[in-house]
Amino acid sequence: MAEDAPPIRFGILGCAEVARKVSRAITLSPNTTLYAVGSRSLDKATKFAASNGFPPHAKVYGSYEGVIEDPEVDAVYVPLPTSLHVQWAVLAAQKKKHLLLEKPVALNSSGGKCPLMVLTGSVPGVKPDLDALGALGDTGWYCVRAILWASKYELPKSATALHKPTYNDAGVILACAASLSWEDDKVATFYCSFLTNVSMDIIVMGTKGSLRVHDYIIPNQEKEAKFSTSSNSNWVELSIGWAPNPSDNVFYNDLPQEVHMVKEFARLVGAIKYNNSKPEDTWPVISRKTQLVIDAVKTSIDNGLEPVEIKG
Amino acid sequence: MAEDAPPIRFGILGCAEVARKVSRAITLSPNTTLYAVGSRSLDKATKFAASNGFPPHAKVYGSYEGVIEDPEVDAVYVPLPTSLHVQWAVLAAQKKKHLLLEKPVALNSSGGKCPLMVLTGSVPGVKPDLDALGALGDTGWYCVRAILWASKYELPKSATALHKPTYNDAGVILACAASLSWEDDKVATFYCSFLTNVSMDIIVMGTKGSLRVHDYIIPNQEKEAKFSTSSNSNWVELSIGWAPNPSDNVFYNDLPQEVHMVKEFARLVGAIKYNNSKPEDTWPVISRKTQLVIDAVKTSIDNGLEPVEIKG
Repeated sequence: MAEDAPPIRFGILGCAEVARKVSRAITLSPNTTLYAVGSRSLDKATKFAASNGFPPHAKVYGSYEGVIEDPEVDAVYVPLPTSLHVQWAVLAAQKKKHLLLEKPVALNSSGGKCPLMVLTGSVPGVKPDLDALGALGDTGWYCVRAILWASKYELPKSATALHKPTYNDAGVILACAASLSWEDDKVATFYCSFLTNVSMDIIVMGTKGSLRVHDYIIPNQEKEAKFSTSSNSNWVELSIGWAPNPSDNVFYNDLPQEVHMVKEFARLVGAIKYNNSKPEDTWPVISRKTQLVIDAVKTSIDNGLEPVEIKG
Repeated sequence: MAEDAPPIRFGILGCAEVARKVSRAITLSPNTTLYAVGSRSLDKATKFAASNGFPPHAKVYGSYEGVIEDPEVDAVYVPLPTSLHVQWAVLAAQKKKHLLLEKPVALNSSGGKCPLMVLTGSVPGVKPDLDALGALGDTGWYCVRAILWASKYELPKSATALHKPTYNDAGVILACAASLSWEDDKVATFYCSFLTNVSMDIIVMGTKGSLRVHDYIIPNQEKEAKFSTSSNSNWVELSIGWAPNPSDNVFYNDLPQEVHMVKEFARLVGAIKYNNSKPEDTWPVISRKTQLVIDAVKTSIDNGLEPVEIKG
């Protein structure tokens, strides 16, 4: 996508809280613009556009259809409840729109083979009554994604839920945990919950070093990414300390992380639109792997915590 | 124990590497003194005493018996391999010696009901060929102890090993993991290994706050205890950061942590010796609970990862 190409025009389906954050990111990203928003309530959509930095010429629709049928819309962001993801993703795809989907892709991967680009948003906040996966599809999605990242996106061979999840009265998962294992001796566990105070920790341990991140979904500070690493640490004489000590690192971002996500997405869309590039499958493959692991954990929960094999 | 009471006289069984650290702690603790060391090799014992700060009048024995039969020895520190713990702990107890045992107490709790005081040391470093529990009884002991601490020493109701452990050729556990669950919805998982680079992390999450410690066994710096806490954190507007942010805390210690352990142990011994106090059961109860959980994890491993009920 050339530097001087027009920005990618976004349409947003619905006025979810998370859409406010992504709208801000679309405004901040140098290669995108807010172009349309649709809600079942025209009034809601109008207020959303007015309070979220939409330019004066932006389109406001009293339906989702209005957005996906607008020929000027390049890409659609879908922050709808999970149970509606696939339906609207498919409809938007049929209209040749590029898709930025909120996680999880779907309630299960059989319905989630979306032909176009799929990225994931990065803000918890789900309506449990519309999403049986609950915490597993929300905070659990981040856990699984982070684990896949740490394993270089190699799918684990099996997933086992660790104990009976905590459910709400409607049967939605509020907290659960699972163990993943690979062909070699790599293992991972994660715990995801709507019930704990804000916590988002990754610890990765290898034979030669380790990594710790404590705010990997939403950073403590918007433009700072902090992490701690240790490399070939050992005990000092008499085991009275470490050498070398772990190092604390801070990476400063000029733009918030979700702006980078939107920018990357728009770069891919622009490559297709202006350079006739073929769609890259990097992100859809990662999303599909994430969903496969989530599915396996859900199956393990449903099958009394039995290990479930994961096939790519 | 009065301020002017004579120091508690320690005898040490064997010259394990870990005994060097505890010898240093006994020297640094204001209420203890190094009094005797025994090894199957008199030469080894002599060299150990000379290079580890034993006073000139200290006794050196060419056997373990010499130490436990010395009437001037108040307390015996037992850093022998796990398979020898119970045998020498019982022999020392029969001689009315107070006991400071290296973890784990025993290969299983049926052999570990030691009648006197039991504390645990705090340094990894085990000879796998003499200890079938391997990483589970060593680094896993710390994990379980930390988890019990975080649960106010309430025993979990069950333990489930998470996957097949990694073994060495002699069948010793080199790495394993387990999940623990309580009557309420509390859950914990731990991973212990001899194969990873130095890593010792606790993350505790509650409904209202969280705690993180990354060097809970041996601190990065000997006289610093660092931890991070968050309390009632939430997202700031548009989920672009946390408020309040987690706080990083450093607690400075005048004495290294193992000196505090030795000092507390000697305080208890002194109370019995000089004040006719009854033995406190705080530490033996905690050690026994730790061993019960370790036992349950081992049983789960041996029974194909089945959940194992824990009874106090």
